[in-house]
Amino acid sequence: MIEPHERIDDLFREEMKIIQSKEVFSFSVDALLLANFVTLRKQGAIIDLCSGNGIIPLLLSHRTDLMIDAIEIQTRLVDMAERSIKMNDKTAQINLIEGDINNIAKYYPHSSFDVITVNPPYFTENQPLKQRNAHAYARHEILTTLEQVVAACRYLIKNKGRLYMVHRAERSTEVIAILQNNNFRVSHIQYVYNARDSNEALFVLIEAVFHSKAYVKVLPPFYIYNIDGEYSKEMLEVYYG
Amino acid sequence: MIEPHERIDDLFREEMKIIQSKEVFSFSVDALLLANFVTLRKQGAIIDLCSGNGIIPLLLSHRTDLMIDAIEIQTRLVDMAERSIKMNDKTAQINLIEGDINNIAKYYPHSSFDVITVNPPYFTENQPLKQRNAHAYARHEILTTLEQVVAACRYLIKNKGRLYMVHRAERSTEVIAILQNNNFRVSHIQYVYNARDSNEALFVLIEAVFHSKAYVKVLPPFYIYNIDGEYSKEMLEVYYG
Repeated sequence: MIEPHERIDDLFREEMKIIQSKEVFSFSVDALLLANFVTLRKQGAIIDLCSGNGIIPLLLSHRTDLMIDAIEIQTRLVDMAERSIKMNDKTAQINLIEGDINNIAKYYPHSSFDVITVNPPYFTENQPLKQRNAHAYARHEILTTLEQVVAACRYLIKNKGRLYMVHRAERSTEVIAILQNNNFRVSHIQYVYNARDSNEALFVLIEAVFHSKAYVKVLPPFYIYNIDGEYSKEMLEVYYG
Repeated sequence: MIEPHERIDDLFREEMKIIQSKEVFSFSVDALLLANFVTLRKQGAIIDLCSGNGIIPLLLSHRTDLMIDAIEIQTRLVDMAERSIKMNDKTAQINLIEGDINNIAKYYPHSSFDVITVNPPYFTENQPLKQRNAHAYARHEILTTLEQVVAACRYLIKNKGRLYMVHRAERSTEVIAILQNNNFRVSHIQYVYNARDSNEALFVLIEAVFHSKAYVKVLPPFYIYNIDGEYSKEMLEVYYG
């Protein structure tokens, strides 16, 4: 079931397991926060882009019986994700494919999803990069850029569909501008800080609606830790429910 | 010195006075927060757009000896501001003119300011409006729009110059997109909430640099009140120093 470089981690709240690998890919707190930020309704087609080891579809599958599509470009990550999906008996609900979102029309019809989630590569090609390995492809804009991710979302999303993205706070204004310029209107935004005494936000969580005219609701900040270094109440809720 | 509908208020921290009017214009907490948010250096030309009763130039004049230009379209507000400037002995430092920022090239040369401050009208023409009076012109996009304000800023700003804007949080993503599309890069952003238990932010404070490549620093939230309803420590600092 698992290979030498891999381990199995718990998703406590969901009572699920996930295959991770320090060498290849392991999800971070931002993936948990993104899944937690998603509003799910009773109907609608869902897709996760840049799906990595399948963390987002797995987490969402605990909250809905709707079908969840997912696409990931790296063969090794697709393989890890497939095994995690099997391990959690989610093969009937999660449909993961190996594919390149820059050729998204090869895999899915236009305007076919109500909800898109994406945890894209965070770092630009200009930001320091040690090696071109699986980790780097997941974290750096080597195989795709923010512009290309949003272009894929724009192709996939239905009218009034909702896009959920997590990104580094330091690129949040760039994300916002690209979304707005692609007919997504940011409807909810939440900044994530390490703790109340942090000097600046770490991550941004964004909900954007396609072809909406809504104003944005800027939610209260989310703190991962209390000032004493323990997980905050809201973070414990995300981990353990 | 003052007319029947007017009153004189204290700017406590600055030990200054300002003429206000419930009928015409009185500044709000957002103006104090904007002035407080501005970083001033030892040199540089400063201008305040949509200057209202001159609150921003007055507040800034307490922190710098640099010349401050200001422009306001409404004759009655220019008159009030002129009298406040005289009352505080700031006529040598603050140069306020009556003018329309949509014809900004009539008044100032291109690329002539290092620092621009602006507290623009907050509400779109579509948002409810009771009467077309002085208050309405200051608060609604009747005489100018956000796009026009940013176009004026783009004309006035020097390369690497800094623009400071306060706006309603609900329009923050629109502001960000327009700035980014006009070659301003948002460099600092701070959301202002009533208190820690607020459901959403009220205002956004933005610093944007012209032709910069900087990433944005998302500052910790600013709370106006404590949860008990008293002014927060940080708000008291803005009021009283």
